[in-house]
Amino acid sequence: MVKITKEIDLYEKLLSKVKEIVILNNALGVLYWDMETYIPHGGIEQRSEELALIRGLLHEKQIDPEIGSLLQQIKEHDNFEKLSFAQKRNIYLIQKEYDQQTKIPKELVIAIAKQGAVGSDVWKKALIESNYDLFKPELIKIFELIKKYAEYLAPDKNPFDVLIDLSDPGFNQKILDKLFSELRDGLIPLITKCAESPNQPDYSLIERNCPVEIQEKMSEDIMELIKYDTNRGRIDKTVHPFTTGFYDDVRITTKYLENDFTSNYYSVLHEGGHALYEQNMPKEYKYEPIGFCCSGGFHESQSRYIENFIGRSREFLEYYFPRLKEITGEIFADVKLEDFIRAVNRVTPSKIRVEADPVTYSLHVILRYEIERDLFSGKLSFDDLPKVWNQKMKVYLGVDIKNDAEGVLQDIHWSEGEFGTFPSYAIGNIIDGQLHWKLEQEIPNWKDQIRKGDLTKIISWLFTNVHMKGNLFDPLDLVKEITGEELSTKYYLEYLKKEYTNFYNL
Amino acid sequence: MVKITKEIDLYEKLLSKVKEIVILNNALGVLYWDMETYIPHGGIEQRSEELALIRGLLHEKQIDPEIGSLLQQIKEHDNFEKLSFAQKRNIYLIQKEYDQQTKIPKELVIAIAKQGAVGSDVWKKALIESNYDLFKPELIKIFELIKKYAEYLAPDKNPFDVLIDLSDPGFNQKILDKLFSELRDGLIPLITKCAESPNQPDYSLIERNCPVEIQEKMSEDIMELIKYDTNRGRIDKTVHPFTTGFYDDVRITTKYLENDFTSNYYSVLHEGGHALYEQNMPKEYKYEPIGFCCSGGFHESQSRYIENFIGRSREFLEYYFPRLKEITGEIFADVKLEDFIRAVNRVTPSKIRVEADPVTYSLHVILRYEIERDLFSGKLSFDDLPKVWNQKMKVYLGVDIKNDAEGVLQDIHWSEGEFGTFPSYAIGNIIDGQLHWKLEQEIPNWKDQIRKGDLTKIISWLFTNVHMKGNLFDPLDLVKEITGEELSTKYYLEYLKKEYTNFYNL
Repeated sequence: MVKITKEIDLYEKLLSKVKEIVILNNALGVLYWDMETYIPHGGIEQRSEELALIRGLLHEKQIDPEIGSLLQQIKEHDNFEKLSFAQKRNIYLIQKEYDQQTKIPKELVIAIAKQGAVGSDVWKKALIESNYDLFKPELIKIFELIKKYAEYLAPDKNPFDVLIDLSDPGFNQKILDKLFSELRDGLIPLITKCAESPNQPDYSLIERNCPVEIQEKMSEDIMELIKYDTNRGRIDKTVHPFTTGFYDDVRITTKYLENDFTSNYYSVLHEGGHALYEQNMPKEYKYEPIGFCCSGGFHESQSRYIENFIGRSREFLEYYFPRLKEITGEIFADVKLEDFIRAVNRVTPSKIRVEADPVTYSLHVILRYEIERDLFSGKLSFDDLPKVWNQKMKVYLGVDIKNDAEGVLQDIHWSEGEFGTFPSYAIGNIIDGQLHWKLEQEIPNWKDQIRKGDLTKIISWLFTNVHMKGNLFDPLDLVKEITGEELSTKYYLEYLKKEYTNFYNL
Repeated sequence: MVKITKEIDLYEKLLSKVKEIVILNNALGVLYWDMETYIPHGGIEQRSEELALIRGLLHEKQIDPEIGSLLQQIKEHDNFEKLSFAQKRNIYLIQKEYDQQTKIPKELVIAIAKQGAVGSDVWKKALIESNYDLFKPELIKIFELIKKYAEYLAPDKNPFDVLIDLSDPGFNQKILDKLFSELRDGLIPLITKCAESPNQPDYSLIERNCPVEIQEKMSEDIMELIKYDTNRGRIDKTVHPFTTGFYDDVRITTKYLENDFTSNYYSVLHEGGHALYEQNMPKEYKYEPIGFCCSGGFHESQSRYIENFIGRSREFLEYYFPRLKEITGEIFADVKLEDFIRAVNRVTPSKIRVEADPVTYSLHVILRYEIERDLFSGKLSFDDLPKVWNQKMKVYLGVDIKNDAEGVLQDIHWSEGEFGTFPSYAIGNIIDGQLHWKLEQEIPNWKDQIRKGDLTKIISWLFTNVHMKGNLFDPLDLVKEITGEELSTKYYLEYLKKEYTNFYNL
C-alpha cells in the first residue's frame, strides 16, 4: 500500500480517527437497541439524557480539526495521486462527512434538535385532534431551519437537492422528477387495473389467528432460509421493526400480530434483507467509510429484494407455503396455494403509507417527494398543503381523505425535520427492478432454485454485486457498474406488470 | 450554593466533566451487560475490540489536564472554604480519582492489561492441568506490575495498604489484621462446632429437581418482596450473577440450577441487595462522585444483608417457606419448616470459595488476605504459596487440599492483577453485624415485621442510613455515623453465635 508518511502514516492516522467515530456510533446503536427492547420502562429518561451526552461527545470527534488538517496534508502530499482507488474513495467520503459536520453552526444544530422535539410533541397532539392548523406553525419553523441547514452545507446549490443527496448521493430533483413521473405514470394504471379487477383475492385467510409461538418458529425458519447468520445476529420484538449493527453483530426486530401473521413474515424478510447487507460488508474495509452501505436507496433495495422479489414471488411461495403449512399445523391446512399467493400479493389503494402494499407504496413516497419539492421551490404554500395532499391521494390512489389525521398528519418525519429522505424507499424499488433484470440473465435458472428453496446463488449474487462493494461507488454509479446501464424505471415497471398480470389474471 | 466563579462557575464545570466520565462508564456497563446476556456469539470479538477503544476514550477523559487545572483553581479560590461539606467531598473524591488516573504511566497501564490477558490465559491452562508451577512465572510478573502500580500511586506508602484503600478507603493492614484475626478466631470454633454437631441438616431436600419456570416465578416474587423496583430494573440469566447500572436502570442477573434452587434464590436476594443500594442512591447527587457507593465493603454489606441477615433468617423463612411451597407445588410439599431452615443454613467447611456457605466464606477471604499480605511483605515466597495455602485450609477449615486446582489455582483474580480486593467480602459481613445490632435497637419489632413478610421498615432503615448517604463518608466513618461506634467484629460474631446455636441446637 502507498504510504503518506511523515513520522507516522497520515492516512492510517486519519482512518484511526474515523474508527473511533464509527465505534462510538455503533455503541450508540447498541444503546438504542437496548432502549427499544430490554430497558426497564423507568430507565428511558435516564438513557435519553445519556444518549444526548454521548451524541455530543461523538459530535466533538466528528468536528475534530485534526481530521480537517489530516485531510489537507494527505491531499497536498506528493504521494496522494499514487493512492489506490479505495483509499481515495475513503478520503472523499471522510471529507464529505467532515464538511457536513463542520459547516453547520452549533447553534443551528441545537435549534434543529430543540424544534424537532417541540415539533414532534405538537405533531402528536395535532394528529390526535386531526388538526393541521395546530401543527402548521411548527412545520414552518422546522422547514426553515432545515432549509438553512442545507444552505450552510452548500450555499450555491438548491437546498432540496442538497437534502436528497444526503440520503442518496448523486440523486437530485432533475433525476427524481424523471424517475418518479415515469414510475407514477406506470403504477397508476396498473394499480387501477388491480383494484378494478373482478378477480379480488380473499384476504381473510391472512387474518386467521396465528399464535405468536408459531410465528416465532416461522421467523427462525425464514432467517435460516435467507442465510441470515444468527450466530452474528438475533431477533427481538419491537413496536416498529428495524435493523441495527454491522458485520459480526447485526440485529433485527419484528412485530407479531396474532390476526395478521404477514406483519412478522414480511418484517423478517425485509429486516433480514437489510441485515444480509450489513453482515456481508467487505471485511477488509471494516470501520472504514467504504466498508458501509452505499446509500439509503441501496439499503432499501436489499430489504425489498428479499421481502418482495423473493418473499412474494410465485416461485418462493410454491416452495414455502407447504413448509409454512407444516409449521402452522391446522391454521392454513385448507388453503390452496393459489389463494395464498394472491392474498399476500393483494394490491389495495389505501390512505396510510405504513399499511400500504409494495405496489402502492411507491405512490405514497412520490406524493411526499412532490410536496416537499414544491414546498422548497415555493410553488406550494403551507396553507395549501392538506388540500394538495388530498388531491394527489385522489388522483394517484383514488382514495378520499376525510381528515388531516388520515392525510397530511400521518407521518412523524416532517415534524422532526426529515425532508428529502422519503425518496430512498421508491429508489430502492427501482434499483431492485434493474438488479433483478440483470440477475435473471446471470442466473437463468433462478426460478428453479427458488422453487427448491435454495437461495444460495441469489444471495451470493447480491453479495458479490452489491454487499461486498460497500461504499466504493455512489449509488447511480454502482447501478451502472452492476447492470451496465443507467438507472431506469423500465425494469421495475415491466417486472410489476408481468407479476401482477399473473396474480390478478389481468 | 456558594459559587466558585470566574466567567463560569468552575465547580459546575468540573462536575460536568465528571458527568461525561460517569455516563461513558455507564454506557460501557450496558455494553458489558449486553455481552453477558443477549449478544450473538459471533459478535463477541467485535465487541471486545469496541470496548477496548471506548475504554481508551474514557481514559483520555479521566486524565484530561483540565480536570487537574479546575481542581487547582477551585482549591486556590477565595470562596473554597465556603463550599458545603458535600461540595468539598466531591472535590476530594475527584482529586483522588484524578491522581489515581494520572499518576500511573500509560506504559504501565498497558503492561498490566497485556500481562492480565496473558496471565489469565495461562491460569486457565494451569487450572485444567492443576499445575501451579506453570502459573507461577505469570503470577510473579503481574504481582510485580501491580506493586509498581501501587508505588506510583503513593510512593511513600506501603503498596498493599494502597491497594486495599482502592476498594475500601481508610482500611489498611493494621486495621484488617485486627478485624480479621478476631473474626478468624471467632469463626473457627463456631464452624468446628457446627461441623462436629450430630445434628446435621438434610441438604438433599435442597437438591430436589425444581424446573426453571418455577424458579423464575420465585425470582419475581422475591424481587417484589425486597422492594426491588422492576420498573427501574430487570433480571436476566448469566453464567455468573452480577448487578450493573445505577439509579433508574439497575439490572441484576441470576443463574438457574434445576438441582439446586438456592443458587437462584440466594443470587436474587444477593444481587437484589446490591441493586437496592444503586436504585436508592441520593437523586440530588446523581452523576456526582458523592452519588455513588461508599466502598466495596459497603456494597457487599448491602447484598449480604438481604441475602443472609434477612433471606436466611428464621423469621423470614417462617414467612417465606409457605409462600415458596405455594409457588413450587408438590416439590417441597412434605418438607417441614424446621428442616428447610436448617438446610439453607447448613455450615460445611469446603475447598472452593464460590461454593462456600456464608459462615465459612469469611475464612476463605481471610486466607487470601493473609497470603497477599505476606507476599507483599516478602514473608511468603511464591514457591511456598501452595504449601501455605494448603496449611491454612487445614487449620482454618479442616479440609485437605489434594491438588492446586482445588487449592491455590481456584480463583482467576490474581492472574488479572487483582490484589487487595478480596477483603471487601469479609468487611461486608462485619459491617452487617454492626448495622444489624443498630437496626435491632431502632426497630425493636423487626422480627414481627419480617414474619409478616413486611420489609418496608427494614429496607427504609437501610435507605436512610446507608443508601442515601452515597459516598459522603469513607466506610469507617460511615459505620460510626450510623452506629455511633467504631467498626468491630463483636456484633457480627455475636449474631452468628446466636443464630447458629439456634439452627444447630448447639
